[in-house]
Amino acid sequence: MKKLINNPLKVADELVEGLVEAYNGECRHVGTRSIVKNDIPDGKVALLVGGGSGHEPIYHGLVGRNLADGAACGDIFAAPPPNIVFEATEAVNRGKGVLYLYGNYAGDVLNFDLGAELASDEDIEVRTILIWDDVCSAPPTEKKNRRGIAGLVPIVKIAGAASQSAASLDELEALAKKAVLQTRSVGVSMSPGSIPATGKPTFDIDEDKIGLGMGIHGEPGVGEIPMATADDLSVQMLDLIFADFEKDEEVAALAPGDEILLFVNSLGATTMMELLIALRKAKAVLVERGIRVHDVIVGPLVTCQEMAGISFSITRLDEELKKYWEMPCQSVCFSKMEGRYGG
Amino acid sequence: MKKLINNPLKVADELVEGLVEAYNGECRHVGTRSIVKNDIPDGKVALLVGGGSGHEPIYHGLVGRNLADGAACGDIFAAPPPNIVFEATEAVNRGKGVLYLYGNYAGDVLNFDLGAELASDEDIEVRTILIWDDVCSAPPTEKKNRRGIAGLVPIVKIAGAASQSAASLDELEALAKKAVLQTRSVGVSMSPGSIPATGKPTFDIDEDKIGLGMGIHGEPGVGEIPMATADDLSVQMLDLIFADFEKDEEVAALAPGDEILLFVNSLGATTMMELLIALRKAKAVLVERGIRVHDVIVGPLVTCQEMAGISFSITRLDEELKKYWEMPCQSVCFSKMEGRYGG
Repeated sequence: MKKLINNPLKVADELVEGLVEAYNGECRHVGTRSIVKNDIPDGKVALLVGGGSGHEPIYHGLVGRNLADGAACGDIFAAPPPNIVFEATEAVNRGKGVLYLYGNYAGDVLNFDLGAELASDEDIEVRTILIWDDVCSAPPTEKKNRRGIAGLVPIVKIAGAASQSAASLDELEALAKKAVLQTRSVGVSMSPGSIPATGKPTFDIDEDKIGLGMGIHGEPGVGEIPMATADDLSVQMLDLIFADFEKDEEVAALAPGDEILLFVNSLGATTMMELLIALRKAKAVLVERGIRVHDVIVGPLVTCQEMAGISFSITRLDEELKKYWEMPCQSVCFSKMEGRYGG
Repeated sequence: MKKLINNPLKVADELVEGLVEAYNGECRHVGTRSIVKNDIPDGKVALLVGGGSGHEPIYHGLVGRNLADGAACGDIFAAPPPNIVFEATEAVNRGKGVLYLYGNYAGDVLNFDLGAELASDEDIEVRTILIWDDVCSAPPTEKKNRRGIAGLVPIVKIAGAASQSAASLDELEALAKKAVLQTRSVGVSMSPGSIPATGKPTFDIDEDKIGLGMGIHGEPGVGEIPMATADDLSVQMLDLIFADFEKDEEVAALAPGDEILLFVNSLGATTMMELLIALRKAKAVLVERGIRVHDVIVGPLVTCQEMAGISFSITRLDEELKKYWEMPCQSVCFSKMEGRYGG
């Protein structure tokens, strides 16, 4: 893979500098490698996201209007160290506390927790909500051990909207927790991305196989299956999501009349053409099951370099989640006008 | 390349069906292979885009709120035939005429012109503005022979906004013409995409080379250069754009104080990480030259399957173009809230 970079060891730093330029005055670079909005109002409950770089446009591309207030950025595929988390925390804090909202990976949890301790020493209150939407990474009874994948986009979008008017850190925490609880994803991969510093592939997979449930770094899922058509694979992926809502005792099964957001994500090299073909089938299956698709997100938002693969994420909406979904938002990662597509 | 498709010969049809599902009620499928908005008001001057499929999310992803009213979609890398153009024209027409706005490729021009003749037989007035922003495809004296590449995104966005209130087809035509005249792009490619029906690469290029000025189907540009750093390449690309504004007698040279939109596009597999690194340098060069970057677009919007490469597009703004840029818009391809990023 021919990468358009300068120094392979500086890509994470340079991409965050570029991201600040993409925001063109709305955000600034803070400390070692964080990006923070310039106009966070006094007294706002702050929302901080973050994680390893290399998955652009997330996480740091979700900072923006009615979205996250800042992001702590790690090196490529590496958690942000505690000092970066702390620097970002200090910069977004407006006296009402900071909610950390990020994907459940051991390194991230360790480092964000240490960052929270540093913040606590400065009397900044921090709460953490982990995103664990990948149903293929652990059974429902152990869902809090799951990885966070593309479901983070609707979750951060909703939490970001809620954070604009949240009266307290408690209130924002409860809302984000509900959004996580109602979000499930399944990913598949056809071919690996490459590690920018070495050019090496992130994993191996046979030419005639698909990794079902594979994570965004190439973590194993539920197994390899033969290469399938878009329609067959879409049905299998949705079946796994339906089965998970069904088996999970903490939530209701997905039932006719339920309203959802549907997010079809590309892991990088998989084209918008393919996403749309998969979406076509997914929508048909959902309609057949009586599920009301309130809105659709489609695009390469949660990636792993030029990895080929897709994921489906479903977020079930109640009136509160829907209200926050409807708010307009703007960022490098995801923007929308008020209302829904069919509005 | 393992593509997630069903029938390789039906990808164009299926992706448009998926696109309609992505719009989730806002657009419908019309005729053979067109997508048209559902709520075009009576008396509106209509804006129709279109072109070959396989470059998703454009063109058909630029249909939307304050954007295009419809798109005529060809098969993969093929112009839409006249009947498809006519079907789309009839569906978007509200009695005030239809502006065709699309990239300058011989097949598209032939087919859209034939579609316009069919429309004329039905007393629908049609005008055509061709997009020819690729400075590497012909010298300034022959700029109307140039190809249309990524510059179409800001052009269609601005024309779409203007079409909401245009009093006449004349007025919209003049505005679109001005946006085209002020837009220039340069593309480069590192590796080919593949043809969905055959899996064959769209072109060949050596491992240590970059195609400078290469078109979105792999058309030759100004030549192959050795693989370069992101910074060096960004400088070379901008130099070509500056030189073109300078040499073109119909427009002024880009001068300190000029306000522009900057669009950094990925042709497919090139990651957002790389786009941001290139954007970082491009912004520095522009600032150094005294150019005011009013707003930034960044992402994989004009692609050729999993082709690796990027393009820079610059649109110089006057007060009128800026006014239409500022309007919010929403589509599968590009959405924004009102105002600019740093707003």
